[in-house]
Amino acid sequence: MSDVAGWRKRIDEIDRQLVKLLNERSQCAVEIGHLKKTMDLPTWQPQREADILRNVVKANEGPLDDAAIRRLFERIIDEARSLERHSMQGGSSFGKE
Amino acid sequence: MSDVAGWRKRIDEIDRQLVKLLNERSQCAVEIGHLKKTMDLPTWQPQREADILRNVVKANEGPLDDAAIRRLFERIIDEARSLERHSMQGGSSFGKE
Repeated sequence: MSDVAGWRKRIDEIDRQLVKLLNERSQCAVEIGHLKKTMDLPTWQPQREADILRNVVKANEGPLDDAAIRRLFERIIDEARSLERHSMQGGSSFGKE
Repeated sequence: MSDVAGWRKRIDEIDRQLVKLLNERSQCAVEIGHLKKTMDLPTWQPQREADILRNVVKANEGPLDDAAIRRLFERIIDEARSLERHSMQGGSSFGKE
């Protein structure tokens, strides 16, 4: 079982890096939301979501397939948007990062 | 708009790192699945999922809240499990990493 334990330890390390990056990403999205509000720019821009998904699929070398990567990033984008909405304290507009 | 562009560029960089880590994590899960099969160990271990979620919540410093981190990792675990199942080429057992 020691090999399994070794791989699990590696997964736990990766997960801590993922948590850090996911939070850093979300903070960027919040900053963009604030900027857009200040500059009175349109906040919801579907083209940006398409750009994000194209970027991550292009970066994907597997073993996860492109559909899995797309599904994961749709969730990541959703969480960022939700956080941005909350950070606007109930404002009526919120942004796609 | 230049500041928004700068934050977006940073998000795109983070996303490429996320793709790399998500794939590395999935590869670890596949390796664990193979080891378990070889060693005839039980493959589905709900306690491991609880351990993973506890680890990531402990590492979380925000701005994403713990519930958001938990939701994201439930999806990440699901994708890893799905990949592991496929890598077993239709085998009846598959592992929680």
